[in-house]
Amino acid sequence: MAKPKFEPRLPKGMRDFLPADMIKREYVFGIVREIFHLYGFEPLQTPVLELRETLMGKYGEDAEKLIFNAQHAGGKEELALRYDLTVPLARVMGQHANEITIPFRRYQISPVWRGERPQKGRYREFYQCDIDIVGAAGQDADAEIISLIAAVLRRIGFNNFSVNINNRKLLTAIGQYAGVEGDLLGELYRSIDKFDKIGADGVRDELIKRGLSADVITRIMEMITVDLPRDQKLDFLKELMGTLPDAQTGISELRAIQDNLRLIGIAETDYDFDFTMVRGLGYYTGPIFEAIIAEGGVGSVAGGGRYDDLIGLFRTDALPTTGGSLGIERIIDVVEAFNLFPESLGGTVVQTLVTVFSDDTRAESSKLSAELRLGGIRTELYLQDKPIGRQIGYADKKGVAVVALLGEDEIASGEVRFKRLKDGQEVTVRRADAISAVKQLLG
Amino acid sequence: MAKPKFEPRLPKGMRDFLPADMIKREYVFGIVREIFHLYGFEPLQTPVLELRETLMGKYGEDAEKLIFNAQHAGGKEELALRYDLTVPLARVMGQHANEITIPFRRYQISPVWRGERPQKGRYREFYQCDIDIVGAAGQDADAEIISLIAAVLRRIGFNNFSVNINNRKLLTAIGQYAGVEGDLLGELYRSIDKFDKIGADGVRDELIKRGLSADVITRIMEMITVDLPRDQKLDFLKELMGTLPDAQTGISELRAIQDNLRLIGIAETDYDFDFTMVRGLGYYTGPIFEAIIAEGGVGSVAGGGRYDDLIGLFRTDALPTTGGSLGIERIIDVVEAFNLFPESLGGTVVQTLVTVFSDDTRAESSKLSAELRLGGIRTELYLQDKPIGRQIGYADKKGVAVVALLGEDEIASGEVRFKRLKDGQEVTVRRADAISAVKQLLG
Repeated sequence: MAKPKFEPRLPKGMRDFLPADMIKREYVFGIVREIFHLYGFEPLQTPVLELRETLMGKYGEDAEKLIFNAQHAGGKEELALRYDLTVPLARVMGQHANEITIPFRRYQISPVWRGERPQKGRYREFYQCDIDIVGAAGQDADAEIISLIAAVLRRIGFNNFSVNINNRKLLTAIGQYAGVEGDLLGELYRSIDKFDKIGADGVRDELIKRGLSADVITRIMEMITVDLPRDQKLDFLKELMGTLPDAQTGISELRAIQDNLRLIGIAETDYDFDFTMVRGLGYYTGPIFEAIIAEGGVGSVAGGGRYDDLIGLFRTDALPTTGGSLGIERIIDVVEAFNLFPESLGGTVVQTLVTVFSDDTRAESSKLSAELRLGGIRTELYLQDKPIGRQIGYADKKGVAVVALLGEDEIASGEVRFKRLKDGQEVTVRRADAISAVKQLLG
Repeated sequence: MAKPKFEPRLPKGMRDFLPADMIKREYVFGIVREIFHLYGFEPLQTPVLELRETLMGKYGEDAEKLIFNAQHAGGKEELALRYDLTVPLARVMGQHANEITIPFRRYQISPVWRGERPQKGRYREFYQCDIDIVGAAGQDADAEIISLIAAVLRRIGFNNFSVNINNRKLLTAIGQYAGVEGDLLGELYRSIDKFDKIGADGVRDELIKRGLSADVITRIMEMITVDLPRDQKLDFLKELMGTLPDAQTGISELRAIQDNLRLIGIAETDYDFDFTMVRGLGYYTGPIFEAIIAEGGVGSVAGGGRYDDLIGLFRTDALPTTGGSLGIERIIDVVEAFNLFPESLGGTVVQTLVTVFSDDTRAESSKLSAELRLGGIRTELYLQDKPIGRQIGYADKKGVAVVALLGEDEIASGEVRFKRLKDGQEVTVRRADAISAVKQLLG
């Protein structure tokens, strides 16, 4: 077979979403948007292209190597594709300071780009789905974010998850407590962060190699692995580190979040404290959280925390900010794997295919399509010359529920025949009753 | 005042959409999507980044200078940001040939990038909104596209528009008729295309300069400016050029489209033939159209046509294709200018702001927020320490309809007070009746 003139190919790490996939994605996005609105978060959209200087210096060197640069012939600005949705939010808060009322709750569901090595489930263009509250310093704001994340996960159909909560201030206190400073502090956190991968023994080994004393390591391990009912975890930390100011603040912030989550009725099993959880991004300053689905080894599906300093890089008044991000690509994969899409969703938007028997009946089929659409039925008119069997096969393959059959006999008698494909049920009705007949077959 | 560390700035030609704008855009996108679904068009999404080789050689040299290139450190592929949604569709049809059933109706609503000189109403990142039917050669397909465009415009609220229809084959025939060939043919079309800017006299002058004989010019002008009822326009052309095969085909295609539009009940005043209309893109091969709103000098808000050769560049079997594109950015501007947004739309997603009287009542306000959300009310909890007057002012500025007032008296008596801001109406109800009270105030 002859080759086409141009080979149809995508760049590495990029995807097309064909209709059946898009319908699934839109279903999940729809739920997410509905719950975001319920919690009073407003839509915001920033452009894909930002000035390179807006992005650089915010994520750390390793991350910034992954940023895509962009340029058109003769363009004078250095541009880049956005790497996340948080730094663009910070820029917006500076640039539109006079137009935005504070506190500001916004969401953004948009693609971002990172030049990472593509692998299973990881792409170079992928959607992020962020909510943030700018200009709210209290723990009721942190609790709003956490309860919103829990509400989204429940509404999607996940019944077993835990939002694990920690506080950057506690991590700072643990460093002080262990007498670790400077570069070593970062290494301590990196070791702790590996807890879920290398376990308690692995972390202990790493800390020994980093030169911490056996005594200090024992007490750090005791704190971060504390296995008590949630209520008693904070008391335990307080007993050990309660004299350190950062520990005091961290503990009381976590207690306030807990009180608030209880108050607004979040299920006790939906959240816990986890002092081994660190999270990567440098900009967090207070409470941090991650939502974990243990079932099927799914792991983290959302995360976030408080970052009180970032917005201040772009405006003269720093604004305390807390937010969260749903791992929406991962969530879509898990909804698929757990079979949580409603059966009615289907792989097509089309409810009825109007078939065409012959060139002589084509006009009447066109007319029927128009009539069905006027009645709100999502209708496709078949637009090729193929035998009726092939047309029904086409509808079946696409997942269209009902086909309309309009042969010369039906036209002569002013009727139309509809066939539901899943069970073969047929009805023949007068044209005036077509819409209600289709609605009944659709159920 | 101190300067921020980073100046918050956008690249040239780029925009942020703040919530009030996003709500308006989503309203228009929502209508468009609904009508697309009604006509059986399926969602498709392609990535922003394509291989540069996929885009180059399709749009013409001048256009291709405007394409944004992209690259990350160490990336080996030459990438580019998509310039339109049609060439990516052609690539998809080649790449996913085995997964896509033909005929294929798809829509895509997505941003594209062009490094044009920014000016009023023209941006470097802007949305396109395309529908196409791939694999349908008949004029019933062209008529589907035109009637869909008309349905969208009506549903948005435009009552006076005309879809002007022409045919590339007629333009070819006019060239033959005038004895114009090669490069001169392109110049002839460019002159004709200027008709709506420079008028009949302007076009005539240009054709004289291009060296056409007075006799030929007179006959061309007679054809393209024919001022007859629509029905008779095609007869007039047939009389003059009916012996040319391209003219015959072009005329009978337009007649078939007219028959089809009549059949499916498109208003006679919604469309016309306009033989001065050329449209820019090189890839059109048959019927072409443009939707014009004369009122307020709005001009073209949609266009499209048949392009039977493009898809074949990416697969071994060419697939006849027809499509259209809504100038969605322009349409949003006009909906604003004509004041066609429903009054109920508002500038916020929030229906009720729950105010906070003091730190002592904060917990009860949190709880009320959770209760209202359970009842489906889109609710914001106020998250700063500000006097109640400031909180109400905040709600008013955002356009929130109702505020909840929950002072110590209300808490003590198990009640809550709601105030509708537009008319000051207040109700005090028991907490159990809060949801229905808000719903009533919202109307």
